[in-house]
Amino acid sequence: MLSNHLQNGIETARLVWSRLPSSEEGERTEIELPSHSRGAESLDYEVIENYAYREAQAQRGKLWVSYYVVLKWLFSLIIGIGTGLAAVFINLAVENFSGWKYAATFSIIQHSYFVGFLVYILFNLGLVFSSVYIVTKFAPAAAGSGIPEIKGYLNGVDTPGILLFRTLIGKVFGSIGSVGGGLALGKEGPLVHTGACIASLLGQGGSKRYHLSSKWVRVFESDRDRRDLVTCGCAAGVAAAFRAPVGGVLFALEEVTSWWRSQLMWRVFFTSAVVAVVVRSAMNWCKSGKCGHFGSGGFIIWDISGGQEDYSFQELLPMAIIGVIGGLLGALFNQLTLFITSWRRKYLHKKGNRIKILEVCIISLVTSVISFGLPLLRRCSACPDSEMSPGIECPRPPGTDGNFVNFYCAKDSEYNDLATIFFNTQDDAIRNLFSAKTFHEYSAQSLVIFLVMFYSLAVVTFGTAVPAGQFVPGIMIGSTYGRLVGMLVVKFYRKLNVEEGTYALLGAASFLGGSMRMTVSLCVIMVEITNNLKLLPLIMLVLLISKAVGDFFNKGLYEEQAQLRGIPLLESRPKLYMRNMTAKEASKNQKVVSFPRVVKVGNIVSVLRSNKHNGYPVVDQGQNGETLVIGLILRSHLLVLLQSKMDFQNSPFPCDMRGINRHNFSDFVKPVSSKGMSIEEIHLTEDELELYLDLAPFLNPSPYIVPEDMSLAKVYNLFRQLGLRHIFVVPRPSRVIGLITRKDLLLEERDHSATTELQSTSVRSQHPLLDSLLNQE
Amino acid sequence: MLSNHLQNGIETARLVWSRLPSSEEGERTEIELPSHSRGAESLDYEVIENYAYREAQAQRGKLWVSYYVVLKWLFSLIIGIGTGLAAVFINLAVENFSGWKYAATFSIIQHSYFVGFLVYILFNLGLVFSSVYIVTKFAPAAAGSGIPEIKGYLNGVDTPGILLFRTLIGKVFGSIGSVGGGLALGKEGPLVHTGACIASLLGQGGSKRYHLSSKWVRVFESDRDRRDLVTCGCAAGVAAAFRAPVGGVLFALEEVTSWWRSQLMWRVFFTSAVVAVVVRSAMNWCKSGKCGHFGSGGFIIWDISGGQEDYSFQELLPMAIIGVIGGLLGALFNQLTLFITSWRRKYLHKKGNRIKILEVCIISLVTSVISFGLPLLRRCSACPDSEMSPGIECPRPPGTDGNFVNFYCAKDSEYNDLATIFFNTQDDAIRNLFSAKTFHEYSAQSLVIFLVMFYSLAVVTFGTAVPAGQFVPGIMIGSTYGRLVGMLVVKFYRKLNVEEGTYALLGAASFLGGSMRMTVSLCVIMVEITNNLKLLPLIMLVLLISKAVGDFFNKGLYEEQAQLRGIPLLESRPKLYMRNMTAKEASKNQKVVSFPRVVKVGNIVSVLRSNKHNGYPVVDQGQNGETLVIGLILRSHLLVLLQSKMDFQNSPFPCDMRGINRHNFSDFVKPVSSKGMSIEEIHLTEDELELYLDLAPFLNPSPYIVPEDMSLAKVYNLFRQLGLRHIFVVPRPSRVIGLITRKDLLLEERDHSATTELQSTSVRSQHPLLDSLLNQE
Repeated sequence: MLSNHLQNGIETARLVWSRLPSSEEGERTEIELPSHSRGAESLDYEVIENYAYREAQAQRGKLWVSYYVVLKWLFSLIIGIGTGLAAVFINLAVENFSGWKYAATFSIIQHSYFVGFLVYILFNLGLVFSSVYIVTKFAPAAAGSGIPEIKGYLNGVDTPGILLFRTLIGKVFGSIGSVGGGLALGKEGPLVHTGACIASLLGQGGSKRYHLSSKWVRVFESDRDRRDLVTCGCAAGVAAAFRAPVGGVLFALEEVTSWWRSQLMWRVFFTSAVVAVVVRSAMNWCKSGKCGHFGSGGFIIWDISGGQEDYSFQELLPMAIIGVIGGLLGALFNQLTLFITSWRRKYLHKKGNRIKILEVCIISLVTSVISFGLPLLRRCSACPDSEMSPGIECPRPPGTDGNFVNFYCAKDSEYNDLATIFFNTQDDAIRNLFSAKTFHEYSAQSLVIFLVMFYSLAVVTFGTAVPAGQFVPGIMIGSTYGRLVGMLVVKFYRKLNVEEGTYALLGAASFLGGSMRMTVSLCVIMVEITNNLKLLPLIMLVLLISKAVGDFFNKGLYEEQAQLRGIPLLESRPKLYMRNMTAKEASKNQKVVSFPRVVKVGNIVSVLRSNKHNGYPVVDQGQNGETLVIGLILRSHLLVLLQSKMDFQNSPFPCDMRGINRHNFSDFVKPVSSKGMSIEEIHLTEDELELYLDLAPFLNPSPYIVPEDMSLAKVYNLFRQLGLRHIFVVPRPSRVIGLITRKDLLLEERDHSATTELQSTSVRSQHPLLDSLLNQE
Repeated sequence: MLSNHLQNGIETARLVWSRLPSSEEGERTEIELPSHSRGAESLDYEVIENYAYREAQAQRGKLWVSYYVVLKWLFSLIIGIGTGLAAVFINLAVENFSGWKYAATFSIIQHSYFVGFLVYILFNLGLVFSSVYIVTKFAPAAAGSGIPEIKGYLNGVDTPGILLFRTLIGKVFGSIGSVGGGLALGKEGPLVHTGACIASLLGQGGSKRYHLSSKWVRVFESDRDRRDLVTCGCAAGVAAAFRAPVGGVLFALEEVTSWWRSQLMWRVFFTSAVVAVVVRSAMNWCKSGKCGHFGSGGFIIWDISGGQEDYSFQELLPMAIIGVIGGLLGALFNQLTLFITSWRRKYLHKKGNRIKILEVCIISLVTSVISFGLPLLRRCSACPDSEMSPGIECPRPPGTDGNFVNFYCAKDSEYNDLATIFFNTQDDAIRNLFSAKTFHEYSAQSLVIFLVMFYSLAVVTFGTAVPAGQFVPGIMIGSTYGRLVGMLVVKFYRKLNVEEGTYALLGAASFLGGSMRMTVSLCVIMVEITNNLKLLPLIMLVLLISKAVGDFFNKGLYEEQAQLRGIPLLESRPKLYMRNMTAKEASKNQKVVSFPRVVKVGNIVSVLRSNKHNGYPVVDQGQNGETLVIGLILRSHLLVLLQSKMDFQNSPFPCDMRGINRHNFSDFVKPVSSKGMSIEEIHLTEDELELYLDLAPFLNPSPYIVPEDMSLAKVYNLFRQLGLRHIFVVPRPSRVIGLITRKDLLLEERDHSATTELQSTSVRSQHPLLDSLLNQE
């Protein structure tokens, strides 16, 4: 009878995957990763809910629960400290490399511009090569910003390798090379990824591969725990990158997480606060000059407190125009990068790592030539009158990182406005663009040249095989056209107290808004990095406009990139067509493969080989002979059972579940960032294939169900809000046993003295169905 | 056969409500409201999903959808402007009343302290009396802060009268009286309520009672739309109260809403930005002196930019101590106010409005006597040396609102430190407590006296029948002990650059954290009102400690108060005991009352009379004779149908659903903030009771279902995350028709050209079950 069941099951094999266009499968492999990680599956966000696991959990005492809570907070602390230190290390290294580079170049060009040019190019090339070499050879998942992948991870899609220890190392050292090498990219996105990696490694108790693992810290088995840690890590990354702790919390909330719980906010907040303290302490320590060139520069804090404090209503028009420009240029940026990345993935990167390295080196050469060459062609301007503008040092003294750079000028009292922004570190260039009380420092021509060239470089650099963030390039682009608009305003509204630097800031906000489409978090980050709250309403206005304009054309940068990488993000709203479709229609082409409760091992193997499903219903006979769905068994759990062979039995009858404690529960925990086992890797003898396996202790006895004619939009909401991975579509029920309303959920605990609230993994549940199954024996 | 069905239904009447302790029912009526609104029901957050409603929706064209979207944003704009103007109006009135009061008192005490005392007392008494009179006679729901009720509304519990036009008016004018009258309460909580009222009135298209309603703006029928508007209103209220737009968004997110959608963030943000611009414009307009005493004071912005910029590690210990004190005093405050409010509700307020008015007047007298009398008993101090502390005017010139108040002093060059904080408006007192560069302004004795007296007054005042916020009193209490700690730090760590004002700020944050238990939003609000970002890590530290300490003792102020008022908030986490309980067990004492598809009117009436359930399953016979649950019918919809009588039919057979367009869909929309119809109000003739009603067009065909042995914790998550009101517990399914996975939800829209995403109310859905029912006829 059992094999009959199974035969039916196999015959009615569900064909979900075959319905998908085959290109979808293909696209997923385009992720720049080693071939062994092809076609990776999405993570299972449902908590492990089988009987055996719960039994193991139940054996843990109260002490374990306290240990778990303490560890959760300890990990948040460690994530904060770790991310803070990583940020300090990256900044320190970048500032020092850049410092040496410019110091060397400036001292050499006193004698020969040509030799200086060569040294500058080679220095950049060396750094960029080190970066791309590390990434391509050692940590391919460290390329790019990593934010789309992290967003995917938190939405439920696992990109292989994205949270490994090697990726962390590659990201940190790759960032130093690519940013220090003067490419048109930033170090902020990579820092978010770094924070997420640190968090994930902590969550899985270290890296097994490098023997850095300890079983004492391996208590976070559920994906929810790990996801929470990664959320903390993201917030820590933003907090560290911008020294913006509140911005970090909001970024994690608005941009990254898919399932936010207000309890988590408290822990994320703590992590961000720790980062702020760590970074601040490190910078205080560096003040005494122990950190080389890392001093005033480094962390992006552009204090514009000396700028415009007030604004008049006439200025709202030019500010609105900045918003519109930001929306247009941002949307264009998203579109262009999408095209180029897609082309690159299709043609260029398929040819192997050499092409990737060559590509980055060529881009580095072009960047160096442009940033050195264009200022050479530009005529110098005379320094502003020192009596009219006190406090301005022009030109800046040699060996410092100030404004008004003297580069290829005939006279000593001249400065090169294009070199001030182009032949400088990005942090300093932004500081110069934001600077107040420096009217007419830049000519419109220089700004336009810079805007066009830098925009093109940013577009081309995006998507190469180096760690790359888009925040700082975005701020550079935005502040350039912002300052241009500011210059026009100064020219037309002569009487107003206008600061060009303020317009540059608004421009930066508008471009980021137009490209990344963040709202509240971006606003708070802009306020925190400029340390000026008074401009908040203006930043809000500009962001509102630029996001609205950008949304008219395409999706945000991260969404576009996630889509391109085949990371299927579930949006927060169901699509319109889903309202006209029922759950049954959505699954009508499927044939459901189900298992009976006790199943022959050979049959499991053949089912697992014949399809790629990740979950199978388990059906059993009730007491009156009718069929009953008793739960969901996951493919990954079946593979664990097949591999361990411990639970194989000779009889085709249900086992005694009270004896199930042989499994180490952590067997069922899927390793982070790996593909997991494959059925092909499991070898079973002929004799073993003839044995039986009782699935009851290992299945999830109550998966979520929906009636067949529920609209797909409602199903979508259920799926999305609860972060599910499988929903059973079942026939319309024949009767209602009870109704659950608010009142039923608000009953006081009667004889339940326990008041602490725990994660769902750590407590034993009773399941009457299973108990009744037990009692049948 | 049908009546058989029904007889069964009635016999098996579900007794959910009877299981609840009767005191719970009683408690709900203790809400200070007119008796006609007793025992109000919670709102239904499920979208109206019956066939008739969808038919009506489907008839609306694309134009209607655009109109709907435009109106949504227009309303956000209007909410922002309205709340901003309300805030300006309240502040203007309060500042002017207070200004006149203190000006009059100070000019009279030049001649006679006794007459001045009398004038001061009477002025306060008059203002407070006007407030309590308005509230008790006209708008009883305007008493208190309103935040627990709004929180309840957004969680799904409707407190009657909380969002009416009269409540709005009562709140605005009541706040002016109670705050202007010098009671120990603030105007910030009431402003949040004001914003919510404005939003709700807009959402329902004005107030019907005062003929301010227009059908053109009555398009927000679903509770979700209205809830979204109220969320915007809350954020606007906070943004207006503190001039903290980001804080407003975060407050709405963290503290108020239960179901947050990231799309909403964008609109809430917009509303907050509008408020910021409105308030700023109004204040600019007032700068020219057109607003009387409203000038430098008014909106709470305590600029401490002149204060401490840096902190050393030795200071972290006293700061941590401030956090601990804040946690302890905050938890004590919550506990004391809970006891007093509970006592007041049980004994005092049952005796009628006269007692309420008398109570408030006595508290006003006591407050006036203490705030005038205690400074009189205090010895004056000599002014600080004007050469040592430049920029300090001591004593302040007569007629201004500065620091160093000369009150009952022997010499002109003296000031009374207790009068500086006690005999002053709260805004000025806080400004003085936060002030930098004013070392040794206060004696420890004065601060301790003030702390004890003001803490007691705040506890006693809380829960009286006037609009009352707890933010400003909390800041007053916190900054007092904060400054005390600061004085100790100055004394012990002599060498450090310590500002007492900074400690006062941290104290304020710690008390609010210890009492309200907010984290991120409070932090951002504190930063925005002090306009100083550098203290952010310190504020975070203090908040972390104070919240942790407070959580050790009890729940947050708003949760405690909501519980006391019988507002059953669903927390975001299920209780521990729910993990050990199944859905069946949770509903095992219930007897489910279900209706057949076509039912006799008389039977409906008797079922509705015999129990209080809000939803009933509808069961029909399938084609093979088996029973099938075809949906859920709401009590409120049944009442609408019984009242209209339009759909009554003679035959006991199903009707033709294609003809169902007679109902105006808005009939099914429950009016906001009212109890709705009662079965007793509907009168039917004997003949009508013999007619039949086909329920199929009016039921929700696919309510959410759970299998009987799902753990209650999982059910809770489903209920809470989706904001449901009814879940059917059904038997374990016999088979699985299909599995829905991420892939099924990510299919590209095939022939569905529409790409716009809409609210679920505005689009027609097909329901095959209903169609098949139709085809049976």
